[in-house]
This record gives sequence, C-alpha cells and structure tokens, in this order.
Amino acid sequence: MTTPRERAPAATRVLAVDVGGTKFAAAVIDADGTVHARTEEPIAGAEPVEVLRRVVTMAEPAEVAAVAIGSAGPLDRARGTVSPVNIPAWRDFPIVDTVAGWLPAVPVLLAGDAQCMALGEWWRGDRPGALLGVVVSTGIGGGLVLDGRPHLGSTGNAGHIGHITVDPRGEPCPCGAVGCVETFSSGPAMVRWARGQGWSGADARRLADDARAGDAVAVCAFERGAEALATGLLTTAALCDVDRVVIGGGVAAAGDVLFAPLRGALEGRRGMAFLKRLCVEPAVLGRDAGLFGAAALALSPG
Amino acid sequence: MTTPRERAPAATRVLAVDVGGTKFAAAVIDADGTVHARTEEPIAGAEPVEVLRRVVTMAEPAEVAAVAIGSAGPLDRARGTVSPVNIPAWRDFPIVDTVAGWLPAVPVLLAGDAQCMALGEWWRGDRPGALLGVVVSTGIGGGLVLDGRPHLGSTGNAGHIGHITVDPRGEPCPCGAVGCVETFSSGPAMVRWARGQGWSGADARRLADDARAGDAVAVCAFERGAEALATGLLTTAALCDVDRVVIGGGVAAAGDVLFAPLRGALEGRRGMAFLKRLCVEPAVLGRDAGLFGAAALALSPG
Repeated sequence: MTTPRERAPAATRVLAVDVGGTKFAAAVIDADGTVHARTEEPIAGAEPVEVLRRVVTMAEPAEVAAVAIGSAGPLDRARGTVSPVNIPAWRDFPIVDTVAGWLPAVPVLLAGDAQCMALGEWWRGDRPGALLGVVVSTGIGGGLVLDGRPHLGSTGNAGHIGHITVDPRGEPCPCGAVGCVETFSSGPAMVRWARGQGWSGADARRLADDARAGDAVAVCAFERGAEALATGLLTTAALCDVDRVVIGGGVAAAGDVLFAPLRGALEGRRGMAFLKRLCVEPAVLGRDAGLFGAAALALSPG
Repeated sequence: MTTPRERAPAATRVLAVDVGGTKFAAAVIDADGTVHARTEEPIAGAEPVEVLRRVVTMAEPAEVAAVAIGSAGPLDRARGTVSPVNIPAWRDFPIVDTVAGWLPAVPVLLAGDAQCMALGEWWRGDRPGALLGVVVSTGIGGGLVLDGRPHLGSTGNAGHIGHITVDPRGEPCPCGAVGCVETFSSGPAMVRWARGQGWSGADARRLADDARAGDAVAVCAFERGAEALATGLLTTAALCDVDRVVIGGGVAAAGDVLFAPLRGALEGRRGMAFLKRLCVEPAVLGRDAGLFGAAALALSPG
C-alpha cells in the first residue's frame, strides 16, 4: 500500500483549496502534513471569483508543486468545472482553468469536498485500511479511500452515499430518485420530519439539543435518520468492503445524539462476517479535513 | 490505465481454476488470452479435493508463473480458505495451501467467482472503464473492476450486491439482513414469489419460458426482480461511479425477459447526470468468464 507520505519527497509543498458553500479556505501544506500558511474568507457579499483569487494567490507559483481543490458539488472533473448548490453565480464555473491562469505552470487538481474529507481523515487522521468518509450536514456527501488511494470514480462522482435509495416507498429526492439517504438523514430532512410530527424548532442544532434533552419527537427524528444512514453504511461496506466509516459534518457534530442510534441500528444488521468488523468513528480533523484531503490528492496523484 | 496485456510479458502463462458448486474447471492461459489447455470435471459423486487435484495437476509447476483460483463463496482471502455453500464437505477448506502443496514454488491467488467473472468480462470482453459484473443465478454475486484493476476489498469480499438492503420492509435474508437484492432477484426468489401468487412451475428456467409466453404472474415476478436489481445497480453506480454493468449467470441467460424490465426500471430513476451514462449489457464470455478473470488476477496482481 502506498501512502502520500511514502510517495512524495518531503520537501514537496502543495496549495490546498477548500471551496465551500459559504467560505473558501486555502493552505500551503507539505508532504509530512505541516501547514505553512492558511487563509480563509467568507463569500457573503463578495464576488466568489474574487474571493477565490485572493485565497489562491497567497501562494507563489514557484513555492508549490501543485494546486488541489476540494469543492462543493456538483462538479465535472473531466471539464474542471463546478456548480456548487449554494453559489448560484457558479454554474459550470471553469475553476481549474481559472486557477491555472493565476498560477501558471502549476498543475491543478479537482475533487469533491466529501471526497477530500475522506482522504484527509485517512491521511492525517492516521486511519489504516479502506475508508468511507461521510459528511452529514445540510446534505449528505461521501468519499472513498480504497487500496490506499482515493477512489474518485470514472466521472469523479464516486461516494454519493446521500443519493442511494434505502426505501423504495420513501419520498422523492431532488436528485430524481426516491427514498435516498439524504431524504432521511440530512439536517433539513430530520427537521422537516420532526416538524411534521408537531416539533416546533427551526433547525438541526435545536433538534439535536432537544433530542439530547429527551424530547420524544426529536429523539425519533435522529433514530429515523440513523436507521437510513445505517443502511447506506452497510450497503457501502457490502459493495466496497471498507474497514471503517468516518462521519463528520455539522449534524454529526451533535455526537451521541446521532452516533448512539446509528451504532444501535448497525448492530442488529451486520449479517455477513466481514461486516461485523466495520468501525464507525467520528471525524477528528474538523473543518480542516478537506484541506488536508486536497493536499493528499496532490501529493499522491496515483 | 494499466491492463494485464500491458503489464505481463506475453510469454507468461498461468493456471486459472474455477471452483463452482457443481463442477471444477481449469485452463492454462497466457498473457494475450490464448487458452493452451482446458479441463472440467463434475464433483457429484466424487471427493471434491480429488477433483481439484485432477484439474490442478494438469499443469506442470515449471509451465505456469502462478495459479489463480476463482471460487464460489463465502471465502476468506487472508487465510486462503473457502466454504462454498453447495460443497458441504468444504468449510474453511484451505484451498490455497492445498494447491500450493501440489504445485510447489508457484504463487497461488484466490478471489470470488463473481469477482473473477467481472474481471474476465473486463479483460477479454474488451470493456473499457470501470465495471460491475453481476451473476444472477441461484444467488446474486458481483465483482468490481475500478481504475483498471480488480477491487477485491480489504477482506476480499467487495462486490456483494446480492446482500445490500433495497427494501427495509422486505423479507429476512439468510445473510442476516432484510430485503436484500437476492431475496427479490435470484432465480429461487422469483420462483418462490411466483408460486405464492399461484404459479405452479418448479424452476427459474420454466418461469422465464412462461414470462416469455406472456404469463402474467411470471412477467410480474421478473419485473419485481428487475426492480430490486435496478436499485442495486444504481446504488453501486452512485457509490463507485462505474461506467458499465455486465450481467451473466443462469437467470440472466433468459435474456430480454430479465433485461427488458431491468432497462425499464432503470430509465425512470437515473437522477444524477453521471448515472445517465451507465450501460447495462449481457455478459459475452459465458461459462469461461471466471477462468479468464482468474487468469487476469494472476497476470496483473497490482
């Protein structure tokens, strides 16, 4: 198995860029994981392309061997374009060509934000084996590290655990399918369901607080979300034979309110022997997982 | 992308072994796909280990660079053991050590039969890109070829599409989960459902004949199986971002009786753009796909 640490010369530095729906971040990171510079800017009230230019041009072209961008999706890896749901001004925005224009002669790589989160947790979280990373937040995203390298997929879209059908009688999903994991387990989905049962809060943070305090509807909303997520995790484990699942994102930050019913839902359903060893763990890198994952993408392009 | 043809010297010959539930086959195959010798023996009425010895020792150790075995499962790749459901005498049978004892100094590799089918269809079926191979038969098995190489998984169990839950209210599966693809789409599952609806035939071949002749219950049994299988294929495509699905096995040999409702079930549900390009094709190599796949495993161990 080849890890980024083994493959890249220790002196290699790359520029990692995290394109989120509300802020952009960038960092110069070297092959042993040291962060040499880091910057971050909200995009509210600004031209997104100007914010991107400012965070990217913190690095001199001579300073870095590559630029790697982890971006909110959808994205088209072949064309190097992104259309982040929360940045309406960017539809098929040519982010790779744009960044390449600012840092000439430096290769520019692109992957999804959840793919980068998975890769970052694998690399800097020191997680051996094959891994599924899941971001449970406004949506549900995922990324796979298989055989010691990121599995991005033929079109760059591997890891879409949020949009697999776990209940054929579930509600329609904006993606076009029905009963997707995201329609049960995302923050807005749990809030929507709880409000339909008479809960009167506004957001997932409040729902988590109420579940922690024992509110029956809030507890049930998390149990329902955990059940669908458990199906998605077991499905991924059966198909990809991963060793561990790492879960991050705003809703996962609620901790046991999500992890306790999730572990409960998994326990009764790990049929096949190789599924019994699957570990489910909270993410450890927090908001920098995506930056480290983007760096790992550039340091180990294989 | 690296193919076995590019990686192995053309003169390399390997012994490919196919361990099925009712017969064993073996062939000496070289790096350009030429079959130099082939043998096959039923196991009914014989000691399975004696049948194995006869098909394996057709090759001289000096003649082959490796032995690769594709076996019915379950199997444990790390320990080199197999427990094929239809060979009760073999439970945790140490097939790798046994074969290594007969052909000293030759490396022995092991993978699942459906994994080898997928790899064989990818290699000799000349199928570019990433591929899911599915065997629809008495059970449902699968195998993945990702990034130009077999993805066998951390424990060697990747590709278990037959045992992912596609309906949480489905019937219990012997694997321990509920509503698995196999409980809807295998030959016995479709027969069982049809008999519950008043159909009086005995097996999947007859069910396919009756569906072809327009029997309403038989048609509906295949539609129901195709619907669950479609969910499994779309799930795999969303998670692994494969380019194509190749379907083989005894039930798939029924042709349009399965493929027509399968394509119909897929059409309405390809939500995300990257799913729209997924091709679903019948297998072309027939019963030798597993032998070619085992050969490819040995010729390109990467």
